[in-house]
Amino acid sequence: MNRIESGLRRILGDRARFDSSEIEKYMHDASYLQPERPLAVVFPKSTAEVSRVLRFCNGNGIAMTVRGGGTSLTGACIPAKGGIVMSMERLKRILEINTEDQYAVVQSDVVINDLNKRLGRLGYFYPPDPGSSSVASVGGTIATNAGGLRGVMYGSTKRWVLGVEAVMADGTVIETGSRTMKLSRGYDLTSLLVGSEGTLAVITKAILRIEPSHEKTGSIVAYYRSMGPACEMLYSLRRSNLPVVTAEFMDRKSVGYMGGSLGIDVAHSAKYMIFIGILSSTSSLASDMRLASVLVKRSKPISSRATISPEEVAGEYLSRKELHDIMAEEVGSRGLGIIIGYVVVPLSKLALAVRDIERMCALSRLGSAMFGHIGEGNIHLNVFADLGRSRDVAYATRMLRELGRIAIRHGGSVSAEHGIGLEKKQLLKDELAALRSPKELVLMKDIKKAFDPNGILNPGKIFD
Amino acid sequence: MNRIESGLRRILGDRARFDSSEIEKYMHDASYLQPERPLAVVFPKSTAEVSRVLRFCNGNGIAMTVRGGGTSLTGACIPAKGGIVMSMERLKRILEINTEDQYAVVQSDVVINDLNKRLGRLGYFYPPDPGSSSVASVGGTIATNAGGLRGVMYGSTKRWVLGVEAVMADGTVIETGSRTMKLSRGYDLTSLLVGSEGTLAVITKAILRIEPSHEKTGSIVAYYRSMGPACEMLYSLRRSNLPVVTAEFMDRKSVGYMGGSLGIDVAHSAKYMIFIGILSSTSSLASDMRLASVLVKRSKPISSRATISPEEVAGEYLSRKELHDIMAEEVGSRGLGIIIGYVVVPLSKLALAVRDIERMCALSRLGSAMFGHIGEGNIHLNVFADLGRSRDVAYATRMLRELGRIAIRHGGSVSAEHGIGLEKKQLLKDELAALRSPKELVLMKDIKKAFDPNGILNPGKIFD
Repeated sequence: MNRIESGLRRILGDRARFDSSEIEKYMHDASYLQPERPLAVVFPKSTAEVSRVLRFCNGNGIAMTVRGGGTSLTGACIPAKGGIVMSMERLKRILEINTEDQYAVVQSDVVINDLNKRLGRLGYFYPPDPGSSSVASVGGTIATNAGGLRGVMYGSTKRWVLGVEAVMADGTVIETGSRTMKLSRGYDLTSLLVGSEGTLAVITKAILRIEPSHEKTGSIVAYYRSMGPACEMLYSLRRSNLPVVTAEFMDRKSVGYMGGSLGIDVAHSAKYMIFIGILSSTSSLASDMRLASVLVKRSKPISSRATISPEEVAGEYLSRKELHDIMAEEVGSRGLGIIIGYVVVPLSKLALAVRDIERMCALSRLGSAMFGHIGEGNIHLNVFADLGRSRDVAYATRMLRELGRIAIRHGGSVSAEHGIGLEKKQLLKDELAALRSPKELVLMKDIKKAFDPNGILNPGKIFD
Repeated sequence: MNRIESGLRRILGDRARFDSSEIEKYMHDASYLQPERPLAVVFPKSTAEVSRVLRFCNGNGIAMTVRGGGTSLTGACIPAKGGIVMSMERLKRILEINTEDQYAVVQSDVVINDLNKRLGRLGYFYPPDPGSSSVASVGGTIATNAGGLRGVMYGSTKRWVLGVEAVMADGTVIETGSRTMKLSRGYDLTSLLVGSEGTLAVITKAILRIEPSHEKTGSIVAYYRSMGPACEMLYSLRRSNLPVVTAEFMDRKSVGYMGGSLGIDVAHSAKYMIFIGILSSTSSLASDMRLASVLVKRSKPISSRATISPEEVAGEYLSRKELHDIMAEEVGSRGLGIIIGYVVVPLSKLALAVRDIERMCALSRLGSAMFGHIGEGNIHLNVFADLGRSRDVAYATRMLRELGRIAIRHGGSVSAEHGIGLEKKQLLKDELAALRSPKELVLMKDIKKAFDPNGILNPGKIFD
């Protein structure tokens, strides 16, 4: 038994695992990127154990990658070479729900859907709702500042994190933020940890802001020949202060995947489908839906359909949420995998960016499909490739780099909601170069040093 | 002419000032704290000039305090001993307003009200609205993560800053964030700069998110004998998802100041006044106000009054905004000044905290009045003292330290929206000690070093 094994066993007993078969699952995340075998996987049950493991790793220069639901699409939780994985799966407790003060305190591996199930019974919900919410953990979504399907109304995860308990590389426990609705208490360490992808500290608990559930929902599905009028429509909805909670777009190929499995009818000439979700009250739903329908019609879609049936609205929402999985399954049955690029541009540039992306894809020898959170100008490009063929993967990777350049050219960013991970390090450099702000990377590295001087926390992610 | 004088003159010509009479105004902020005479005041006209001045100061170890509207209540823009002041007053341009993408790009010294006047003509507004909005600058409100009267719906400044252009101590210009609605691009330097009180970099421009104006407003004023039912009422309004944009409370003494100048009638037994503002649409205003009125009545106030007259709503809002100035004037006429403490607690603890504060004030030999943003559990305690008598000032300071302790005891924070400045350094330490998280201060100092290794940017603020 080597020194690492004995050290970890001393702290965690048989919750430090070294068997090949058990480690398998922790070699990769949900991305296409090359897996890496960790030396060990550890399963702490408490903040104190997280602290002891970190102190041990820090003292012995062992790289440590923390892992939540493992749904990263950027390689953010692929372990470092010669490092270990800390799985948070034994830290799954909801510790406190306070509806009067509108917060919940949870351990970091609580799954988003589980939290929302509990909150739902009390008439509350946690707004950030990434597509992977049935698996994604609170800690993971904080680490990537996850967005999701309600972002157009509720923004990304950052807005909902009031504070965290986190363990630093040297084992020190910090408590950032507070249970209050506002705070101006020196540098905002909470916001710094949100989106830091496990490179600054290990988040063990979070204080999350929650909201009362809305009484009523409605939705509109509309088909368009081109993106311009769809964006105009969205602009007019926002301009009217309508309570739009979700605004998604799918290109024809994406709709094909949804339609196939869910029986949605598509007009022959339709190139894009837009899904609009409305959150309202009993007294306002009718007038909100009436106004929204008028504005949608004014944008001259090929066809549109509105509903206030809770089952239909929920069904449409869920089918959009499951789109990635449905697509992955169908593509998988043809022996292919999905390589996903996801960028963001200002809404006014979305139609142009989509046009440029389509031109690129038309020339590509790999198939693809596009969808995204149109309400925030967020585009997900799914490239279908044989992940076993390095030529295909390299080709797809070049497409994603070009995707990033398109976003930058239109005043956007290479990363809207999944973070940088391993995958986008070069794109991050490209973007900061385009902004003539390369110094930011230097600052990030200096901040990393302040938190983690030995560089043991998820090294090689965000930057080298 | 000494070296500093000649160096600054070389960069800025006669926009570097050294005359006693001109410097006077830049010795203090809006707080009661001891003024300090800077060596010079400089007025750069461009980011490039800001950069050159900073490079000069950095190379020569000259402390530099940046100054916006000068409305800090914590001493945040009182210059350091032997340092200079950089006034941003020549950087007042609104550079771009993009309603389609819902952002504005402004130079840092644009006054909040001026921005909102321009936006209002286009049917938009910038939500953060501190009481001092007629003087406070965008840069200053970013530096303190200012809150204000719309925080219950729109949160603090941080949520509205998409990115900034900032100049670092060594003169390097960085561009954080983007013009997009979401971003997950490594560590969030934008959020780190928001609330950093001029200690990390000088903000020269900001990309601010803006919102479409609402069609209709309504308000309810209610009087209560005690805070408990008022808090219950607010809880029920929030629980019902009513569009509450403002929720203020004033104790009887504060109402006296408002009533005196604005003719508001107060029931004899009323101890607290609550002001609720509603933002709504033409189609929903009636039902929103009906529901709000029912909920207010259910809380059994002594009396209440609702209005949807735009003039009346605006008048009430403005009179709350001007409360501090009215109070300062009245108190000033008696030869006294105001020493303000402002803390925050969870809403469920507000009534208890107010009770504790009132007990403290009842024993005090100094007069005081309380008001605050009840919607966020925010309490402003105004202590009236003869600022020329150090005994009075010391006494008031002890009261504010006790106020901080009351907030901490009730799970709150010593600083909700004005920052730490010079005034709250000890309270910040107290709070972090109570959280058993003193390490945060070490992290903040390390982050400061990464941005400003020579410590020239607003030294002595937030921490020593």
